[in-house]
Amino acid sequence: MKYGFGVDLGGTTVKMSLFSTDGTLVEKWFIDTDASNGGKNIPGDIARSILADMKKYPFDPDDYIGIGIGVPGQIHKDGSASAVNLGWDHTPLLGELTKITGLRATGGNDANMAALGEYWLGGGKGCSSLVLVTLGTGVGGGIIIDGKCLDGAHGAGGELGHIPIEPDETRQCACGSRGCLEQYASATGNVRIATEMLSATDEPSTLRSVAKLDAKSCWDAAIAGDPLAMRIADVFSDYLGRGLAAVANIVDPEIILLGGGVSHAGDALLTRVRKSFEKYAFPACKKTPIGLATLSNDAGIYGAFRALLV
Amino acid sequence: MKYGFGVDLGGTTVKMSLFSTDGTLVEKWFIDTDASNGGKNIPGDIARSILADMKKYPFDPDDYIGIGIGVPGQIHKDGSASAVNLGWDHTPLLGELTKITGLRATGGNDANMAALGEYWLGGGKGCSSLVLVTLGTGVGGGIIIDGKCLDGAHGAGGELGHIPIEPDETRQCACGSRGCLEQYASATGNVRIATEMLSATDEPSTLRSVAKLDAKSCWDAAIAGDPLAMRIADVFSDYLGRGLAAVANIVDPEIILLGGGVSHAGDALLTRVRKSFEKYAFPACKKTPIGLATLSNDAGIYGAFRALLV
Repeated sequence: MKYGFGVDLGGTTVKMSLFSTDGTLVEKWFIDTDASNGGKNIPGDIARSILADMKKYPFDPDDYIGIGIGVPGQIHKDGSASAVNLGWDHTPLLGELTKITGLRATGGNDANMAALGEYWLGGGKGCSSLVLVTLGTGVGGGIIIDGKCLDGAHGAGGELGHIPIEPDETRQCACGSRGCLEQYASATGNVRIATEMLSATDEPSTLRSVAKLDAKSCWDAAIAGDPLAMRIADVFSDYLGRGLAAVANIVDPEIILLGGGVSHAGDALLTRVRKSFEKYAFPACKKTPIGLATLSNDAGIYGAFRALLV
Repeated sequence: MKYGFGVDLGGTTVKMSLFSTDGTLVEKWFIDTDASNGGKNIPGDIARSILADMKKYPFDPDDYIGIGIGVPGQIHKDGSASAVNLGWDHTPLLGELTKITGLRATGGNDANMAALGEYWLGGGKGCSSLVLVTLGTGVGGGIIIDGKCLDGAHGAGGELGHIPIEPDETRQCACGSRGCLEQYASATGNVRIATEMLSATDEPSTLRSVAKLDAKSCWDAAIAGDPLAMRIADVFSDYLGRGLAAVANIVDPEIILLGGGVSHAGDALLTRVRKSFEKYAFPACKKTPIGLATLSNDAGIYGAFRALLV
């Protein structure tokens, strides 16, 4: 048995983990993300935390296969990384990790690492290809083909949140375009659809009296049978199903998995999305299974470690 | 030096070829596609034509690496093939070719084979990934990632013509959905856009007096500076650029190539499509080169032979 580290670097917290090569999560811990000085302390902080962890176990350096890391951005071929939210622009990363720990380092975009985790031991276990769509504040995505991440020639592989989906949109997406999937099929988009549909009518709805109108309250009301909330859920799901059909007509994965906060709506979401997907998908892939991601917030560390085994 | 056969099976003609492994097209010939009896004579016809060709050269059987074939449908894992237009449904193909010729046989969807050909020795030579979009009667596509065809889990990889692009469409696409890219960005779609825009106004246009309103006459008029024809070209290109942006935001290829009849419009098309693409593409891939396929109708045989080298 050998061991290795899986790291999921976030904007406020770094999730750290020790895995054994049979897929057992041995240990999990967190350190703060030091965003000061353009994030230049982060690689050293991660490496020293790993070094400290290595001292707790009676293993030789040879017992470790390395460090896998997912970043909220892109890891370049030279081992440096860029991540707007951390202030990183070609910041040395993999080389720094190796210099301090003596271990091999590899990794990639955090959404792609999460997809690799779900492929390995999550909702896509046993499949050779999958698409993971993460429905959070934004819409993220990762694509696995034949067991490998589709990173793309410019690190934009799997940027599913930015598929153009609504030609008539006038508002701008964070990326600068108009009508991106993320403008509708994210938690933020869900609230916007709800706000617009609530203000377009006087129809009574339990949503008018919730303390906070968010994606969860929208789906809770839809599940409880509130008619307007159910129509909001339909509109949200139609956008998402259309986006997933675009993905399926292009990469045709074995399975599509939904993760992130909005996916907690579960069957109420899946049923609607499958209906919309089937409407827009190419005949050969109309029956592609759409399910839920199962590793939740741990998908990133599972995938980051798994990247060491590719 | 070794040799092999590249075959591109079409609905009326089978294009046959002999290649050497350095990429030289040694010989090219055609046989008729015998569509009678559910197309069951086709595999034998192809195999016997290859056998006859082998007798013309003083090579040993060991000098041949095999037969690569592209079909207008799908080749299954068991070597059988399905192709609606030929009446094929899991029709034995690769096994039949091998049984009669003694040569190894492999292959795939014809659009994917064409993409592999363009990747090998065409417009994508030197790239590791590309998307080929064929603008003909319909819109076909093929995707190459790390030198391999993205076939998809259900043979629907690269079905770019059926990306949902226009949510407001009421007319049905041949695939059964509504608002597919092919309904706008094909030669057929081009004529429809032109017909609608011509009938919506009394504005003079040279297009009103052409003998036959087809994609070529539309682009000829746009290139000659006819204002209405130029706007038709803009609308066509906006749809296509939006579809290509969807593809780029998902698979992020190194280059996008346009082929098929409409691509003969050349720079008038490329300039417009690049502008539209840049509007909808994710920042990291806004500058993805969009160029022309260069192997024309031979892309399929190049790719089919190249599939033997994967």
